[in-house]
Amino acid sequence: MGCIICCGLGPGDPGLMSVRADREIRAATHVAYFRKKDQLGQARRIVDGMLAEDVREYPMEYPVTTEIAFDSSDYVGLLASFYDEWAERLAQLAKTTNVVVLCEGDPYFYGSFMHLHARLKGRVAIEVIAGIPGMVGCWNAVGQPIALGDDVTTVLMATLPQHELERRMRNSDALVIMKTGRNLAKVRRALNAASRLDDAWLVERGTMPTQRVARLRDVDDECPYFAVVLVHGRGRRIETDA
Amino acid sequence: MGCIICCGLGPGDPGLMSVRADREIRAATHVAYFRKKDQLGQARRIVDGMLAEDVREYPMEYPVTTEIAFDSSDYVGLLASFYDEWAERLAQLAKTTNVVVLCEGDPYFYGSFMHLHARLKGRVAIEVIAGIPGMVGCWNAVGQPIALGDDVTTVLMATLPQHELERRMRNSDALVIMKTGRNLAKVRRALNAASRLDDAWLVERGTMPTQRVARLRDVDDECPYFAVVLVHGRGRRIETDA
Repeated sequence: MGCIICCGLGPGDPGLMSVRADREIRAATHVAYFRKKDQLGQARRIVDGMLAEDVREYPMEYPVTTEIAFDSSDYVGLLASFYDEWAERLAQLAKTTNVVVLCEGDPYFYGSFMHLHARLKGRVAIEVIAGIPGMVGCWNAVGQPIALGDDVTTVLMATLPQHELERRMRNSDALVIMKTGRNLAKVRRALNAASRLDDAWLVERGTMPTQRVARLRDVDDECPYFAVVLVHGRGRRIETDA
Repeated sequence: MGCIICCGLGPGDPGLMSVRADREIRAATHVAYFRKKDQLGQARRIVDGMLAEDVREYPMEYPVTTEIAFDSSDYVGLLASFYDEWAERLAQLAKTTNVVVLCEGDPYFYGSFMHLHARLKGRVAIEVIAGIPGMVGCWNAVGQPIALGDDVTTVLMATLPQHELERRMRNSDALVIMKTGRNLAKVRRALNAASRLDDAWLVERGTMPTQRVARLRDVDDECPYFAVVLVHGRGRRIETDA
């Protein structure tokens, strides 16, 4: 009887993976990971050079592209079948062997693996190994404390309506905005309306070799890949005793 | 010329430390860490058994206890001198050797090291190694996704006034409440007023051998050590296709 081992990969730099995830991935005989159609996939790329030569790989290719509206019933139906099928397949595999599932960031924090987790729980033994969330890698890339003292930190998805983003941006010290991509223009307008644009950073592929860190106001392109927007809190600093 | 290497230790389980932090800590010749007076300290405890036999240790003992009010000028003054002195001492040390500074969780996320970082920046080379924040270890201990879909996640310090906590608890999907300790009764009242108490979890020492996970409503003691309160979001789940 095997089990499913979901390894949080952290933000992208393999050196930031946990000691335990590193060990499980190197020892894996069966590895599954999500990816978009016809792409190698970010998760798979992070473990490049770590997998055993005879490892069996199971790329779980999303059945939809961004062409289908996010909240359409077609989209939800396609995704549900996709997760159902892969849950079944992984459960069958785990009858005879351990299967390592690769997950960017931390699996419990907005992670797609959770849709499999909900379907596999109770059917098969599952171990989840925590990882450094992508946003943590991004604020480390900027190199300033994201929050201190009694700062309030709010994590927002850029998919929310602009007025909702703006209201929450006004109402928090530190801000993390994820799933930016095509929503970056909206995020920029909301930050501007909330008077936070000048303090905002854009971090693309934080901790990866192709990392980019820039002031959001200096960024021209509207659709960066895998980017997080950050606004730092201003929490209690203990000033030098003068 | 040496440098300061600040290692994020993660939530407590040494297996959740990053590969890079693990390597730096095992190779360290000089190690500094914060601790309360007369205690071994959580950071030092996490690396037990990892340090070289002839390592030189620099416990940075906080000069104050919780007896002094948090926002008094005495408190701030004492802390400022403390950080000034240790920044000076570490800068001197780093002239001739590398110094590893141990930090629980992730150094840039509400971490005390940032008070040294602000004083050392520009004077000496500093490397910061990201870690899994304590809250991530805590929600992994519960074993449910803290947030999914377009959930809003808010991180609150329990030191905030009750009405402020309550307002923000009403106004977020997922909640993380840190620095609970003596503020737990207030947190409980605020959650109750915001109708979130029944969904709240208390996690003490998440991922450590003495971890405790409980529904907050079932917890009697008012002052647990090193505890985080969590309320999970209810974000978009992709239901099984029926």
